[in-house]
Amino acid sequence: MKIGLVQMAMAADPDANLANGVAKVREAARAGAQIVCLPELFRSRYFAQREDPAQFGLAEPVPGPSTQALAAVARETESVVIVPIFERRAAGLYHNSAVVVDADGRTAGLYRKMHIPDDPAYYEKFYFAPGDLGFKAVDTRAGRVGTLICWDQWYPEAARLTALQGASVLFYPTAIGWHPNEKAKFGAEQRDAWRTVQRGHAIANGVYVAAVNRVGLERPAEGGGGDGIEFWGTSFVADPLGVVIAEAPVDRETILYAEVDPGRLEEVRHGWPFLRDRRIDAYGGITARFLDDPS
Amino acid sequence: MKIGLVQMAMAADPDANLANGVAKVREAARAGAQIVCLPELFRSRYFAQREDPAQFGLAEPVPGPSTQALAAVARETESVVIVPIFERRAAGLYHNSAVVVDADGRTAGLYRKMHIPDDPAYYEKFYFAPGDLGFKAVDTRAGRVGTLICWDQWYPEAARLTALQGASVLFYPTAIGWHPNEKAKFGAEQRDAWRTVQRGHAIANGVYVAAVNRVGLERPAEGGGGDGIEFWGTSFVADPLGVVIAEAPVDRETILYAEVDPGRLEEVRHGWPFLRDRRIDAYGGITARFLDDPS
Repeated sequence: MKIGLVQMAMAADPDANLANGVAKVREAARAGAQIVCLPELFRSRYFAQREDPAQFGLAEPVPGPSTQALAAVARETESVVIVPIFERRAAGLYHNSAVVVDADGRTAGLYRKMHIPDDPAYYEKFYFAPGDLGFKAVDTRAGRVGTLICWDQWYPEAARLTALQGASVLFYPTAIGWHPNEKAKFGAEQRDAWRTVQRGHAIANGVYVAAVNRVGLERPAEGGGGDGIEFWGTSFVADPLGVVIAEAPVDRETILYAEVDPGRLEEVRHGWPFLRDRRIDAYGGITARFLDDPS
Repeated sequence: MKIGLVQMAMAADPDANLANGVAKVREAARAGAQIVCLPELFRSRYFAQREDPAQFGLAEPVPGPSTQALAAVARETESVVIVPIFERRAAGLYHNSAVVVDADGRTAGLYRKMHIPDDPAYYEKFYFAPGDLGFKAVDTRAGRVGTLICWDQWYPEAARLTALQGASVLFYPTAIGWHPNEKAKFGAEQRDAWRTVQRGHAIANGVYVAAVNRVGLERPAEGGGGDGIEFWGTSFVADPLGVVIAEAPVDRETILYAEVDPGRLEEVRHGWPFLRDRRIDAYGGITARFLDDPS
């Protein structure tokens, strides 16, 4: 199975981003990709750099304009498309979501980001209610896959719970970058930590991991402070042994392709059969916030 | 806090290994290490390359000769010592364990390996009953630390449950190496996966990780088949961002030193406060073997 990751730079105009996304999905499908994944919140610049109620106007329902446009492309190209959405669920209730559109244009799954960050210039807790659908793997014409979103990638539980549902690929639409004033000092180790923890999920679970980021320096919308975020691209695919088999550049748009080989997944899990030996009798503490008193 | 990891080559004679371990702990303490960790099953060659009931004769109780000898050294040097043991608990009941001896010689904790491998040349399920004490962090004079053992290092749950108990360092006494006939083809990626998944635990939990391996080619004991295991050394310490701050060579004995800085741990967790956002309401499935029917 061939997958295509659309690493994009976002324009100010949401319609331009949709047109760009549609064109890139078509291009990826023409190149043989059976599943194509767009980056997190691909319709807009990363508005969560500040807290601004006006930005809720960017949200759309599911189904809505973005999913309908991409569903048409999925049907036309007979490829599965993963469509990240700023989801309007009700007045005052929004999610950071990803819709899996199957190759016939029908919705195969909806995932709502479960772990919501709140850090300087990533004020997502203001915009997004935490997901209430849990972790999800879904069947598509191109195989069983899971979707997680950005901050989820730091949580081994998220990867595990998706892999335990039989996903062979974990897709992580993402919007992550450097604070320009931190890049020189901490940039290399931050990006490496981001890649490493996800490679670790691939290894621990014996699955493919595909991270899809945006590129470009985005300054806060008018009225905001700060010097922006330099999104670091570096979209990549790791195989079930954590080997990076494809990686995109740090600073420009590209479509990254990789082959997902079920035989490789099977082989790696035969060699290191981690799922066999999990101590499910002893993992109950995972549902605690902290084990201050582990007695 | 300075830690010392004793990367050892094992002799055929268990008493020689004890003498070597004692000498190395003294050397590490003289060099300023406040916690010194020995490798998994440091008293002997890696006997689990074959299934042989005679090898149970290597086991010893806790407390027993090894812990008593190292407790004396701990008291003498005022350093904490982590002592991996082939533990005889009762006739026919054995564990792969690690005793944390505090700097006054008293036992601070006993950990029994929870995840037991069983792979060609690693026939541990024959020798060791799975641990029944759960995952453990313990207070020592040099801080609160956790112990896990070898195969545990592939399990994010083990790292998480130990970190949630407040450990600032996860120690992994280990015996891992290459099948000589696989080394050329798979050796580099196997070793890198081993290092990567543990660096991932450091990142996901914001803790230090310290892995302590043995070195040398060990052939199976007499009567066994196979061409042995080439233990790959590479003991290392990763900081809470997953940066490898110290790493030992692949093929010779050494004592590896690293500084553990509580300020660094605090700083990393301030920057990426993952523990804040865990979805403990949604992790219940972790105690399932597999989520065939996640409904």
